[in-house]
Amino acid sequence: MAEVIEFTPVGTVSEVSGPPPGEGFFRDRRFRVRIYPEYIEGLSGLEAGRRIQIIFWFHLSEGYELITYARGLQKTTGVFNCRSPYRPNGIGVTEVTIVRMEEDGFTADGGDLFQGTPILDLKPCG
Amino acid sequence: MAEVIEFTPVGTVSEVSGPPPGEGFFRDRRFRVRIYPEYIEGLSGLEAGRRIQIIFWFHLSEGYELITYARGLQKTTGVFNCRSPYRPNGIGVTEVTIVRMEEDGFTADGGDLFQGTPILDLKPCG
Repeated sequence: MAEVIEFTPVGTVSEVSGPPPGEGFFRDRRFRVRIYPEYIEGLSGLEAGRRIQIIFWFHLSEGYELITYARGLQKTTGVFNCRSPYRPNGIGVTEVTIVRMEEDGFTADGGDLFQGTPILDLKPCG
Repeated sequence: MAEVIEFTPVGTVSEVSGPPPGEGFFRDRRFRVRIYPEYIEGLSGLEAGRRIQIIFWFHLSEGYELITYARGLQKTTGVFNCRSPYRPNGIGVTEVTIVRMEEDGFTADGGDLFQGTPILDLKPCG
């Protein structure tokens, strides 16, 4: 139960453009993901237009409450019933569309990612 | 880059029924998730019929290859272009339907989870 699982980021969000955090829509936000050199080969087969899940660490969120205010629901609810960044394990999952593959990563649209967000994993949707 | 992020499971898969691993369809598999007592309150608001994402640890998968055989694609491809359990960070994301809420967790249908799978997080879909 007290088992600790360790992960190491495979990349990071190196650039974000669009509405500032907390304003506008995620879908209007474009960002660059830089994958660290030792993992670049794992991107093989991904291409522009593809939808992927990005699994990341909510590195800016400290602490959590089990009952929390959910903006989407406009009420308080369990942390597992909302997507608040303040979670027992601060893991985020967001779906984005790849705009362009690049030598050291890719550019994508959508997703609630901040500059410097540590990337833990990428998976094709579905 | 060498930053290590630590997570601690919030629960585990306590029971699985349906086709054995590697056979049949995930959608025919039913399982119980037991959430540890200190996190139970975080389930508030979840109810039968809801679709949720379960974020879990591929605890049976040791090691990974950046180029791997993808069963779905029937060819080799980058690990980030498939959902293989052998990944740089062994994080799985699966979508399931809650069948029944229980005092210490819930029963759900679907999802590629094994008995003993450590649960890292739960989130409502979308």
